Amino acid sequence: MRRCFGSWQNLGPTVVDWRCAVKLSDRGNAMPASPIRRLTPLADAAKAKGIKVFHLNIGQPDITTPPEMLEAVKAFSDPVLSYGPSAGLNETREAMAKYLRGIGVDVSANHVLVTQGGSEAILFAMAAICDPGDEIIVFEPFYTNYSGFACMLGVHLRAVQTKVEDGYHLPPVAQIEAKITPKTKAILWSSPGNPTGAVFTRQEVTALVELAKKHGLYAISDEAYREFCYDGHVATCVLDVAAELGCSDRAILIDSISKRFSACGARIGFLVTKNEELLAAILRFGQARLCPPTLEQYAATVGYSVIDKYVPPTIDEYRRRRDRVMEGLAKIPGATCAVPEGAFYVQPRLPVGDADAFAQWLLTDFQKDGKTVMVAPGNGFYATEGAGAEEVRIAYVLKEEDLQIAMDLLVEAIKQWNQR
Amino acid sequence: MRRCFGSWQNLGPTVVDWRCAVKLSDRGNAMPASPIRRLTPLADAAKAKGIKVFHLNIGQPDITTPPEMLEAVKAFSDPVLSYGPSAGLNETREAMAKYLRGIGVDVSANHVLVTQGGSEAILFAMAAICDPGDEIIVFEPFYTNYSGFACMLGVHLRAVQTKVEDGYHLPPVAQIEAKITPKTKAILWSSPGNPTGAVFTRQEVTALVELAKKHGLYAISDEAYREFCYDGHVATCVLDVAAELGCSDRAILIDSISKRFSACGARIGFLVTKNEELLAAILRFGQARLCPPTLEQYAATVGYSVIDKYVPPTIDEYRRRRDRVMEGLAKIPGATCAVPEGAFYVQPRLPVGDADAFAQWLLTDFQKDGKTVMVAPGNGFYATEGAGAEEVRIAYVLKEEDLQIAMDLLVEAIKQWNQR
Repeated sequence: MRRCFGSWQNLGPTVVDWRCAVKLSDRGNAMPASPIRRLTPLADAAKAKGIKVFHLNIGQPDITTPPEMLEAVKAFSDPVLSYGPSAGLNETREAMAKYLRGIGVDVSANHVLVTQGGSEAILFAMAAICDPGDEIIVFEPFYTNYSGFACMLGVHLRAVQTKVEDGYHLPPVAQIEAKITPKTKAILWSSPGNPTGAVFTRQEVTALVELAKKHGLYAISDEAYREFCYDGHVATCVLDVAAELGCSDRAILIDSISKRFSACGARIGFLVTKNEELLAAILRFGQARLCPPTLEQYAATVGYSVIDKYVPPTIDEYRRRRDRVMEGLAKIPGATCAVPEGAFYVQPRLPVGDADAFAQWLLTDFQKDGKTVMVAPGNGFYATEGAGAEEVRIAYVLKEEDLQIAMDLLVEAIKQWNQR
Repeated sequence: MRRCFGSWQNLGPTVVDWRCAVKLSDRGNAMPASPIRRLTPLADAAKAKGIKVFHLNIGQPDITTPPEMLEAVKAFSDPVLSYGPSAGLNETREAMAKYLRGIGVDVSANHVLVTQGGSEAILFAMAAICDPGDEIIVFEPFYTNYSGFACMLGVHLRAVQTKVEDGYHLPPVAQIEAKITPKTKAILWSSPGNPTGAVFTRQEVTALVELAKKHGLYAISDEAYREFCYDGHVATCVLDVAAELGCSDRAILIDSISKRFSACGARIGFLVTKNEELLAAILRFGQARLCPPTLEQYAATVGYSVIDKYVPPTIDEYRRRRDRVMEGLAKIPGATCAVPEGAFYVQPRLPVGDADAFAQWLLTDFQKDGKTVMVAPGNGFYATEGAGAEEVRIAYVLKEEDLQIAMDLLVEAIKQWNQR
């Protein structure tokens, strides 16, 4: 019989079995709360006090979703909202493949699996290539939820640090190569970068894929922000580079309609690879969860038919917002910041000492004219203990006038924080 | 540097590093294909030849989704399809809690987490309580996708066999208790049962929760088919029994709107527990994947407002279908079958020797008047090697007249199969 311990006291040899406590798994305990969402209760408390909170913490765009996408959902006329195929609806996969061919990537619908957000694409990719104890190389600061999925699957993230002073671009290849161990299974990056705003050059992406080729690793590229590049920067698709280097078997593309179409609540992502064995394994994971949501796949399909009309003005809008945020940051003495080349985030180092405490204080103690601002503490985007302690992530997804107010609040708050 | 081997040949000391192959993880290789879906290519091939395939393999009801639910989606008027809360929309959680209170379960919206189908609820529950190598006790035949999530997470399912001759009800408690090891973390069951159709009595559920209480295990109950009980059988909710036994901390309810509202494509499930520490851990998993799909949560909310009108006639319909299937099975000499007490599946033992080969043959070689029938091979619902080899799962989710045709086809097919 299983040995049990009392939940409140050890009753010794007279221990009553049924008092033994249930416990969480180690991974359940280790699972990190989202640095983007974990301060939400403080924000709710501030709002309950009547304070207006400007959300710079979360990448939830206020830009209108293409109305055609919502119309496609409304046009759904089947009497039954039934399961779709585990790999996604054929027409949705075809729309995604066609979109990728349009940017020069040679793929067919057969290489595409529709997932429940880019999130599930990451989870499935990690599960299909890593066993517990295996390692994936990431570049910190990185998209925080990589940690969550790695924790769930027992995968270790080995972080290569990139620096705000370098615009969060890659360090010399030798520094990355030094992190590779026999347990390493993949290199994972996002470009345009969340939270960094860095757009890796074709040379950088090529260097990463070459490393993957040399060491038998997968190259996993999260390109959810592909279109959002500014000032002539261009996103490089991992599938394109891998084809060029003759190692398409190791390229995994993670993508999502969430940001491209301002449709985060649709939960439609996709995974693309030309490695058929891998695709088959991932489809088996997909079969276990049956299928992605049906209605939103119709929305996604239509989204790609209006992309040429929808996306260019959206890029312009985000660039204007970026500029507004940069103007605000320029008013903070001692802040260090690279101009974001893409995505809609910036991760500045702020002169606040402990940015986590500062982010909380913004919600609990600061307000000006009944307003405050919410940012995501930067340390949650690092695997290295203590790194990013002075950084915050700012998402510029609000209207320009709101961003203006939010940045003014941030400037004022840092002043007050340092005068406490 | 990592040691690499050529993918085609070992080139010895002159090995060219970049030829080293990428590999799947062990879990990716071990991941089972869904026995419900893996024969789909054969069905597609049969359809391509002009053969009409009656699908008894998958629990995809043809019953109309409540139109109010689809109307709720169409009424969505926000300009942005945005992220919802990670735990689900408050109104959806409240509707689910209210529904459970209506069946006598004392819970509030705070105990409810909305998930991407019941699938995600199972995945999160397993992840939060099991580390790799830990064990969960299940009763075979069991819902096949439990295997998939267990494989993904490195969890071992320890199967207690139930038998068609006993109507797939539980064996003596000592047989279950004998499977408990120091690695056991939970007992998991579905009642009304998929694929068995068994509805565990209150005594049976009480016995399972008492075992969980005695041994410090979680009691995970998958009650997606709660309403679908026939002939006076009543489903017992794990939360209710656990409250009665004073161990609410170990009860985890898995639920879903998929079957209740014939809305499988919505991908809305939920998890309910009064264990706050567990709920917090599961919410952290939920934060990593951001949120469940937004539009369908509005559908789910409205579903619960029409449940009293919608569900009773649906139960009557499924009971009639069950009877039609049982009439068909009665015409098969040598078939063994318990009358399903609930859900909309039956798992008979058929006189076909290898049911897997038979299920394939139905799609590749059999047809009558240009029609055939598809069933799910029963072995995929067992963890024990070789078990269930003569069984199939039949889902009675088609109209009565179609079920009649399908069962006649099955009777004829078995005759021909045995005369080959």
